[in-house]
Amino acid sequence: MNIIKGYIEENKDRFLEELFGLIRIPSVSSLNEHKPDMLKAAEYWKEIILKAGADKAEVMPTDGNPVVYGEKIIDSSLPTVMVYGHYDVMPVDPIELWETPPFEPNIRDGKIYSRGADDDKGQSFMHAKAFELMIKTNTLPCNVKFMIEGEEEIGSVCLADFCIKHKELLKADIILVSDTGMIAQDIPSITTGLRGLSYMEVEVEGPNRDLHSGIFGGAVANPANILAKMIASLHDENNHITIPGFYNDVIVINEHERAEMAKAPFNLEEYKNVLDLKEVWGEKGYTTNERTGIRPTLDVNGMWSGYTGEGAKTVLPSKAYAKISMRLVPNQDNEKISELFKKHFETIAPDNVKVKVTALHGGQAYVSPLDMPAYKAAEMAYSDTFGKRPVPTRSGGSIPVIADFEKILGVKSILMGFGLESDAIHSPNESFPLFNFFKGIETIPLFYKYYAALMRK
Amino acid sequence: MNIIKGYIEENKDRFLEELFGLIRIPSVSSLNEHKPDMLKAAEYWKEIILKAGADKAEVMPTDGNPVVYGEKIIDSSLPTVMVYGHYDVMPVDPIELWETPPFEPNIRDGKIYSRGADDDKGQSFMHAKAFELMIKTNTLPCNVKFMIEGEEEIGSVCLADFCIKHKELLKADIILVSDTGMIAQDIPSITTGLRGLSYMEVEVEGPNRDLHSGIFGGAVANPANILAKMIASLHDENNHITIPGFYNDVIVINEHERAEMAKAPFNLEEYKNVLDLKEVWGEKGYTTNERTGIRPTLDVNGMWSGYTGEGAKTVLPSKAYAKISMRLVPNQDNEKISELFKKHFETIAPDNVKVKVTALHGGQAYVSPLDMPAYKAAEMAYSDTFGKRPVPTRSGGSIPVIADFEKILGVKSILMGFGLESDAIHSPNESFPLFNFFKGIETIPLFYKYYAALMRK
Repeated sequence: MNIIKGYIEENKDRFLEELFGLIRIPSVSSLNEHKPDMLKAAEYWKEIILKAGADKAEVMPTDGNPVVYGEKIIDSSLPTVMVYGHYDVMPVDPIELWETPPFEPNIRDGKIYSRGADDDKGQSFMHAKAFELMIKTNTLPCNVKFMIEGEEEIGSVCLADFCIKHKELLKADIILVSDTGMIAQDIPSITTGLRGLSYMEVEVEGPNRDLHSGIFGGAVANPANILAKMIASLHDENNHITIPGFYNDVIVINEHERAEMAKAPFNLEEYKNVLDLKEVWGEKGYTTNERTGIRPTLDVNGMWSGYTGEGAKTVLPSKAYAKISMRLVPNQDNEKISELFKKHFETIAPDNVKVKVTALHGGQAYVSPLDMPAYKAAEMAYSDTFGKRPVPTRSGGSIPVIADFEKILGVKSILMGFGLESDAIHSPNESFPLFNFFKGIETIPLFYKYYAALMRK
Repeated sequence: MNIIKGYIEENKDRFLEELFGLIRIPSVSSLNEHKPDMLKAAEYWKEIILKAGADKAEVMPTDGNPVVYGEKIIDSSLPTVMVYGHYDVMPVDPIELWETPPFEPNIRDGKIYSRGADDDKGQSFMHAKAFELMIKTNTLPCNVKFMIEGEEEIGSVCLADFCIKHKELLKADIILVSDTGMIAQDIPSITTGLRGLSYMEVEVEGPNRDLHSGIFGGAVANPANILAKMIASLHDENNHITIPGFYNDVIVINEHERAEMAKAPFNLEEYKNVLDLKEVWGEKGYTTNERTGIRPTLDVNGMWSGYTGEGAKTVLPSKAYAKISMRLVPNQDNEKISELFKKHFETIAPDNVKVKVTALHGGQAYVSPLDMPAYKAAEMAYSDTFGKRPVPTRSGGSIPVIADFEKILGVKSILMGFGLESDAIHSPNESFPLFNFFKGIETIPLFYKYYAALMRK
């Protein structure tokens, strides 16, 4: 313990400087203009892994953004841990809401503020530094592989192919991921379930051009009004999703399990206060944690039509658009759900408009068992550094590749996330507390220690 | 007739060049960045009127954009015609749909393409040139005043005050306006009714910041989904507007009048073909022309929320917005309607969101009687130049100040519009046929001639 804390204390400032170098590269995967930044970020990662002491590291091409692969094989008879993370980040808009520029990391109130501070540059970087620490202090007990991709935020479109192609290279006993959150700084938790995702874009076209709303208003279907009506119809009065067949494959969680889950610490008043909500919202018959943990959902992520500038423009728009995503639970197939959505949306479109429905990306849900050695090792590591046992939780978020890893590589993942809800990932002013960053670097080597020990038995 | 046609033929190219000079000034009134262009356009108009032969012309300040006033008083015992028009134009977005830049007038297929080509630079300019023609050919039979404003597209916010302040200066017998359309190039028409307008902006706020749609989706009211639901509820299944009291003041048009109106030439199949519509849309129990002519309507003019860029962003947006306008019929009061809308929208907002409702602008509806001398004079003028009697029509559009003129100045307006539906005003690739532009310049002096004659009786 002293060795770990001592090494962190000595190298603190350098760790942050190196992380900041990565953050300063605006590697937004969803925008084509940032293509060159993707390669820069990948090269930066390669250097970091090499300098930490890897045997080798390389930037490997895919049909999209490259994957950084690195490894340190100390003894082929020892277990192998593969670290998965991503160097790409979300877009930054609305840019005007950022208090400091998103790609200039800024420390205030003990937090790093920047896009990617948590998701996932900050979190994945903890692994690079924990790896360096174990090598430099001669405490590395396992073989280590790194697979850091650049398309997580756009659905890891090329990673499944990459895994199929490099199955041998990527052999491992466990995949270690920090891309999720924990309940609070004093309540460590391990994510044991992730939701799947089906992300769609819809276009509703009315007249073939924008019209004057005075001359045509009332006589021509307004695609914005029609889209609103179609979106509204996707939930019933109990906030159930109305797409036929949507719930068919959802596994009903029994009362006992729900009672167990309800024991996780949660304060509804605080939740509402933090988000400034008068009331929460959701599917009738379920609690807030159940709504994000065990139930599928449907949300508009973006919606646009007509005139959106200042003042008034009396236009009857030709087209209206929405990005709509569904979070799925284990046993729901994202491709099947995308198909059901498409079919339903086309079916409910009235005769006076044309609709186009496109699946933008998706992924399957994932559940990790509590009895595997990696879970136990993680539990012990957190117990050492936080002084209490971590709580197993189901996250509402999705990391689509986690299900792919199991399917293609036959390897389970352990999700040791150190983020907080207040980190505002995907939002303006994303942050990551210094406490969590350094606590992560401290906890990870202990995971390796206990994992190696448990695997030896 | 020969004098008129001869003068137009001789000066054709100069007329166009002068109009193009006005069009090249990007006088978009709804965008603050164009403030300097408003003054430029006003100064340009002043010069045009002066050069045509006015006694005086000046750019007169208001609390907003200035009004260009000019006059030619030949004999105080003769009737006075006041020309009303506007030098401001609509915004140009979506800019990428323009085939040629919106402020670089381009002639193709016998049409002028540019923002303002019709609305209202092209149409109001016909009056400047008809005025010049009558002076230069010594045929002016009336006194003439010009009042050209710069805020029509944002609701003529300062013009009512301007009229109150300059009531004496603005004394006239009739107000002559070309800011409407005609049925077709071979079917002249005169607009005898205009709809009123109530233009609102709404904001729906959910959580106090953008959230990750995975972690919070399903547990927090999504303002985009809620806004969609609220907009959807504004029409019932028969496309009646559901705002309580909305129809209270609508005067029911009797069957005889509806039968008369139904005689106006209209081809539903062609209407659908031009707009590429499978089906029209609208309030149950009314025809397409009735829906825009005699019935009030409600349309979304703009709608935006969350992520609208390329690709996918899994955000649960904090806010969602819409611009929603209602077209009103005579006897509906726009301020009362704005109040009803605001109250209703606030009432239907669920507990889990906050809403803000703002009235952006509005105006009253207007009806012009068919038995006034100005209508008869216009009818005779069109009959001469088009070879057939014009059809009286009710437009779905709004020119809010027309009702104000009557209220404040006690003067009726005659709406001699030469635009076509296919001019795409307020849309990309707005155009105005050269035929209509020159036909307008030819018809206007005849209106003056017949009007002076009828007023002498």
